[in-house]
Amino acid sequence: MAPVAQAAHGRRADLARLSLNTATTKHLTLAEAAAAAAAAGLSAIGVWRDRVQEVGADQAARVVADHGLRVSSLCRGGFLTTPDPDAAGAALEDNRLAVREAAALGTHELIMVVGGLPACPAPGAGARPYPSADPGAADPARDLVATRRRVADRIAELAPYAAEHGVRLALEPLHPMFAADRAVLSTLGQALDLAAPFDPDVVGVVVDTYHVWWDPDLARQVARAGAEGRIASYQVCDWVLPLAAEPLNSRGHVGDGYVDFATVTRWVRDAGYTGDVEVEIFHEDVWATPADRTLATMAERHVRHVLPHL
Amino acid sequence: MAPVAQAAHGRRADLARLSLNTATTKHLTLAEAAAAAAAAGLSAIGVWRDRVQEVGADQAARVVADHGLRVSSLCRGGFLTTPDPDAAGAALEDNRLAVREAAALGTHELIMVVGGLPACPAPGAGARPYPSADPGAADPARDLVATRRRVADRIAELAPYAAEHGVRLALEPLHPMFAADRAVLSTLGQALDLAAPFDPDVVGVVVDTYHVWWDPDLARQVARAGAEGRIASYQVCDWVLPLAAEPLNSRGHVGDGYVDFATVTRWVRDAGYTGDVEVEIFHEDVWATPADRTLATMAERHVRHVLPHL
Repeated sequence: MAPVAQAAHGRRADLARLSLNTATTKHLTLAEAAAAAAAAGLSAIGVWRDRVQEVGADQAARVVADHGLRVSSLCRGGFLTTPDPDAAGAALEDNRLAVREAAALGTHELIMVVGGLPACPAPGAGARPYPSADPGAADPARDLVATRRRVADRIAELAPYAAEHGVRLALEPLHPMFAADRAVLSTLGQALDLAAPFDPDVVGVVVDTYHVWWDPDLARQVARAGAEGRIASYQVCDWVLPLAAEPLNSRGHVGDGYVDFATVTRWVRDAGYTGDVEVEIFHEDVWATPADRTLATMAERHVRHVLPHL
Repeated sequence: MAPVAQAAHGRRADLARLSLNTATTKHLTLAEAAAAAAAAGLSAIGVWRDRVQEVGADQAARVVADHGLRVSSLCRGGFLTTPDPDAAGAALEDNRLAVREAAALGTHELIMVVGGLPACPAPGAGARPYPSADPGAADPARDLVATRRRVADRIAELAPYAAEHGVRLALEPLHPMFAADRAVLSTLGQALDLAAPFDPDVVGVVVDTYHVWWDPDLARQVARAGAEGRIASYQVCDWVLPLAAEPLNSRGHVGDGYVDFATVTRWVRDAGYTGDVEVEIFHEDVWATPADRTLATMAERHVRHVLPHL
């Protein structure tokens, strides 16, 4: 491998666009994750709200800045699908807080995971089948079409607030295997349709390889997202098999699975995306690995599988 | 519940379009499954090739006819994605055999599960990561676009043979969580694009709720499939959570999960589909249940969740 160029503060030029999402180093505090990212030569970090809220958004911003990092995104707003008005009000209020946190952190991108069906247990609550409706009756708890309409309505409610704070709602389509329990937003095309009524600087989309790699319409929709100026984040991790018992935690390092990173990365590049490439891996094995080794693997895979096509 | 109308041979009028797919009663021979279906009042059965080949296609046809049943479909052809010419030749030959078996069974519909990426282990072979390509190089084993093109080429090779035998290749989009290992055909729209060059009587599509329920474009594509005369089979089972350790065997009885059967069934009805409704459930618990109980549950759920909208 060619010698690695070193910039000021130990930054590596070849990692200039690589960002550590703190979910990848789940057991680290924000300060620890920022230190690990900086030590590995990265310039950016994507942060989850739990690690931000532990210290408060203002202090979190200082911690990140002290390590010379920028914040590529805040994860996450969303879970906006409930038909219950009180719960919806609380969800919107929490999303407004997320918008303010993003602004305090100095990031433009608030990742949105919109939420699942009303019939489905909340994340972590375990399986709890919802009683079926009467024969022949409508079943609002399983009504995917209506649930998706509610998402559109609530994005419309939030968008002006995000705009006021200089924050973009970055709609993340999740893999269809999460359509019941986590996100009724399942494809990039659907995310772009949802974003269409809004300024691209206010509502954008996330391209996460784990969630969208399978999509036969992906090339066209990535190009569309780029042409509209809506690509808010490019997140990478790999589709590995067999799936973990908790499929949410089934992701692998880039190169360990079946995603064609060369092709997808070229589509994203050709769409004009010049932002960060965030590595967000949910996997027990990765979480059990020392952070410096995880960062080293991330860097090696980035240089090998993503950077040549970026 | 209203009293059940009984027709000749113990057929139930309310189950006139309900078909038992033999995968639902995995441990039964074809004769046992046919007997169970007939005893429950069904008029149709969808058969898998393993159970047909145990007795031979001609004898299988007699067994089914002796129970007064029609064959709603034969499962399955496909697994046509290999880039290796010898393996491709063998796969095509096996598919031609499947066409002849379908013809012998007197069914028009041969369900096609097209196969996964070259990089991915064959079903049942366990996880075996395929070595990555050199940095910057193309990686044919993960090239989803090229793999999908090969499927199109091989459908084109098979179509005339199917036509000669009066059999339709029924392309089944599988849930995107199977895109790597079982089917690079992931959406109904993609299946219809693939079918478009061919006569609708020769290449059709399958609508299986388990695989397509999440699709934001489903209403439109079901209508398109109907307008083109390509709906070869409507298969039903439910999306239940948590996923089983082997996600293939994660399906539930209609009504046990999150699919909105009222809505999807109405779309299929409004698309003009008048064929059978096949219940195909892969689940260890269902397989461990006595067949008469499984059939009783199938019938009850059909009458409750599907029939009112059919």
